[in-house]
Amino acid sequence: MNDMKGFFFPRTATGQSSLIPSPPWYYSGDLLTVEYRTDPARVAELLPAPLELAPEDPGAVALIWADWQSCSGTREELLDPVRSQYKEAFVVVRCAYEGVTYSRCVYIWVDKDFAIGRGMHQGYPKKLGSMWQTRPHPFSHAAPQVAPGGVFGATLAAGDRRLAQAVLTLTDESPTNGFVNGHPMAHHRVYPGIAKGAPDAYAELIASGSSSFEAGPAYSGDVELELFESPTEELHRLEVQEIIGGYYRQVGVVWDGGSTLATAGENGWEAAAR
Amino acid sequence: MNDMKGFFFPRTATGQSSLIPSPPWYYSGDLLTVEYRTDPARVAELLPAPLELAPEDPGAVALIWADWQSCSGTREELLDPVRSQYKEAFVVVRCAYEGVTYSRCVYIWVDKDFAIGRGMHQGYPKKLGSMWQTRPHPFSHAAPQVAPGGVFGATLAAGDRRLAQAVLTLTDESPTNGFVNGHPMAHHRVYPGIAKGAPDAYAELIASGSSSFEAGPAYSGDVELELFESPTEELHRLEVQEIIGGYYRQVGVVWDGGSTLATAGENGWEAAAR
Amino acid sequence: MNDMKGFFFPRTATGQSSLIPSPPWYYSGDLLTVEYRTDPARVAELLPAPLELAPEDPGAVALIWADWQSCSGTREELLDPVRSQYKEAFVVVRCAYEGVTYSRCVYIWVDKDFAIGRGMHQGYPKKLGSMWQTRPHPFSHAAPQVAPGGVFGATLAAGDRRLAQAVLTLTDESPTNGFVNGHPMAHHRVYPGIAKGAPDAYAELIASGSSSFEAGPAYSGDVELELFESPTEELHRLEVQEIIGGYYRQVGVVWDGGSTLATAGENGWEAAAR
Amino acid sequence: MNDMKGFFFPRTATGQSSLIPSPPWYYSGDLLTVEYRTDPARVAELLPAPLELAPEDPGAVALIWADWQSCSGTREELLDPVRSQYKEAFVVVRCAYEGVTYSRCVYIWVDKDFAIGRGMHQGYPKKLGSMWQTRPHPFSHAAPQVAPGGVFGATLAAGDRRLAQAVLTLTDESPTNGFVNGHPMAHHRVYPGIAKGAPDAYAELIASGSSSFEAGPAYSGDVELELFESPTEELHRLEVQEIIGGYYRQVGVVWDGGSTLATAGENGWEAAAR
Repeated sequence: MNDMKGFFFPRTATGQSSLIPSPPWYYSGDLLTVEYRTDPARVAELLPAPLELAPEDPGAVALIWADWQSCSGTREELLDPVRSQYKEAFVVVRCAYEGVTYSRCVYIWVDKDFAIGRGMHQGYPKKLGSMWQTRPHPFSHAAPQVAPGGVFGATLAAGDRRLAQAVLTLTDESPTNGFVNGHPMAHHRVYPGIAKGAPDAYAELIASGSSSFEAGPAYSGDVELELFESPTEELHRLEVQEIIGGYYRQVGVVWDGGSTLATAGENGWEAAAR
Repeated sequence: MNDMKGFFFPRTATGQSSLIPSPPWYYSGDLLTVEYRTDPARVAELLPAPLELAPEDPGAVALIWADWQSCSGTREELLDPVRSQYKEAFVVVRCAYEGVTYSRCVYIWVDKDFAIGRGMHQGYPKKLGSMWQTRPHPFSHAAPQVAPGGVFGATLAAGDRRLAQAVLTLTDESPTNGFVNGHPMAHHRVYPGIAKGAPDAYAELIASGSSSFEAGPAYSGDVELELFESPTEELHRLEVQEIIGGYYRQVGVVWDGGSTLATAGENGWEAAAR
Repeated sequence: MNDMKGFFFPRTATGQSSLIPSPPWYYSGDLLTVEYRTDPARVAELLPAPLELAPEDPGAVALIWADWQSCSGTREELLDPVRSQYKEAFVVVRCAYEGVTYSRCVYIWVDKDFAIGRGMHQGYPKKLGSMWQTRPHPFSHAAPQVAPGGVFGATLAAGDRRLAQAVLTLTDESPTNGFVNGHPMAHHRVYPGIAKGAPDAYAELIASGSSSFEAGPAYSGDVELELFESPTEELHRLEVQEIIGGYYRQVGVVWDGGSTLATAGENGWEAAAR
Repeated sequence: MNDMKGFFFPRTATGQSSLIPSPPWYYSGDLLTVEYRTDPARVAELLPAPLELAPEDPGAVALIWADWQSCSGTREELLDPVRSQYKEAFVVVRCAYEGVTYSRCVYIWVDKDFAIGRGMHQGYPKKLGSMWQTRPHPFSHAAPQVAPGGVFGATLAAGDRRLAQAVLTLTDESPTNGFVNGHPMAHHRVYPGIAKGAPDAYAELIASGSSSFEAGPAYSGDVELELFESPTEELHRLEVQEIIGGYYRQVGVVWDGGSTLATAGENGWEAAAR
């Protein structure tokens, strides 16, 4: 398909209608993070071969809400912000591959199709959801500030059911924004075989992270988290055994590609040359 | 209905499900304003009795996008922000009543039902729409700052048609955020008669404004504005003859009721006692 | 405002942008009804003066899902169906006024602004919600038929929370489609006073019903109903004590105005001349 | 990943949260089809290797609206219809591969995430859009019937811009529902390489069609079609040179997998063994 333009589908003569532009992709946004511990066996269930449980604190989970504005290198999306703004909530655990610890997004919901497209490329298992998080604003009439005392709510729903909600009260500046989402991501990219009952036609394990990252001060605080059941979701299976912490941070990020860790062939997973 | 609770419908024993809580209502948000001149005759068409054209600059129009977070006095909506955040775009002209100049919202689109409910109370002719405006963010990766050089886009759609779009490039701090929306609002509250063909059962002219207002510095800039036709809208009739200016400002507002200017009775409009 | 056109706001020179056209309004749609009994005291809580509990079966409630296509006399909305199709769920109880039994909608959710506008006129306390009901289709690959054996699901959500869900399995043709929604509606139309703390500026009790009604055969069946709590809703207070029945019917309706039953004046409610 | 369950992502221990279930997938719905001719050069632009223009009528295009209810073999989605109902609009051209004529979807918009997921699997280049088509109903108050004289509107929007609209007036029962979408689909399934600037990591050409198809009578009629420009779409490039016809048909469909036609390797496309 090298005679067509367009980073992703649809590929056309001009590439103008591609669901997503070529990387690099630029992001400005606010992250509200809740970290907690669940039964490590439940984390293990979400780590397909060739991944393994992380050696330390294997039951640690991060549930992260993000309120994003994003664009390509042309920044044209910023002038038509229906193409630029989106919200997401995602669940991150840690895992190990060949002795290295990675983060891994096991569930994620977004509210725009371009975000789904980017997720397909990056191996995020994106669904549509409805996410809301309190926004800070210079005027406190109906808004908190990113500072001790600021109170932020966050909710997640999908399929017309609420899946999670959190309230975070900032108490202190924090040296970290949590640790669960702090490694490069290890994600699978998979195409099920098109024939009935066929095995996967393609399976690849990739690593990916920011190519550039800037952030304001992180704040930690007291956090309450509730998870709810849904017949089409399994987030509630990662039940909260112990809250680790809650965090808030404003960030600027660039994403510009990743690398292949392994591909699945006829003889199982084969590590990529590095 | 004094035995029921609830500021607005539904009224119940507890009032818990009222579409909107009792005022005061609190707002934090960002305003992107485009002011221009149209044919004053087109403004006059939108001023029912007992209103008249404003004596000065009667063709001045403000098209304003607002990205709001709002709450009641309990601030509980801020913790469940689907109940707190909304976006709107609205069109303001000026008018005169008994020698006093008022602002008047002639068209407005919002994206939440509680905003429609507040609008019913305040006399704003609210419809549902899809509004987007570029958000400032501390990190410029995918965001402007509220400062000279910041570029903001804003779009409005309803009924699956784009109605308006603007691009504002901030150039200077400005002594004003425009003048068209600077007066108390003069709005009608009307119930058509329930019987077929009956005249209005109720018509009232009310005045309303902020009970408290704080704002950051205003910025003016270069602005491009396009309006588009739709079979169910008339915004395009207020055609742009001359751009006055574009403005951006962050504000905090409290609204806590208004006053009756006049009511319609059997003998026409009758001014309220003041 | 007689010099302006437009049945509802905004009123303009042409009336083209009015949120709703002048009646008559035409509807084609499918009704899924669940009737049950709750504590009559909970029904009484929702009946403001001058209404009283219905003398017979005062705790009867109907929760009705409707999948509508609607239009004005021009039928132009049918060619731009974003303006024509909407879904709703509503809760009906019965009440009495001056010895006559009426139906009354105490809660209702819709998904279009024109439906909200019509509800304001008719006294329905409309909020936005997300409603889904299984559609019948001639081909049964992924659809039931409107006939014994047909299984229909229905769900209601608002504010990103599920509020109700039902499953109805049709068993028999039925002489009725239920009885709770079978009377003219008695609804209040109210404007809270615009001044802080003021009493209602306007309150009217109106009666309203179809001016024309056609329907296919009604079917009854076995029904399961679940109601869920929400901090902003009170539907769950009408708890299910006993299921009366479930019904499905396809209907065609015309609405063309109602009549005033009473208006609230300085001395309380005063019956309208009839 | 054979130790995990779930046809598509996310893969988990139970498979319960997979975005889409395993085929077969069942569909009941209504198709409104507009066929027209455009410049064949514009069609050729949308046919990547190893596809070629169809030998006959190569500029023929079908723009199809579909109002679907769908489910898996359990039919459980029909009882929670937010998981079952969706709308789509899609553009089909014809092409040739190894001397056989195929249909090919070049653009498609849907309104649910499970539909996007199925499209990823089947090679449809799905984006989110807002589609509306007039529904037939037994009662004509606000609905046409599927019969001569029935008038149906259809609209498509994405990114808050209207992209297409059509009005179809049925005149005759028709021996066909059009011809452009009548062949098996030839679609690409592609993963761009994860490394910056890398070639596609995976590219496959698949063929796919219904495993079962039933339909009611097809009707043809007079049709008007308008296409509109958008900066992020290219549908308008397939400009209407000549209308072929408009069609309406109700169908029931089963999809249960496809077959690989070719895969891209280091030496270009290689036909699959058959």
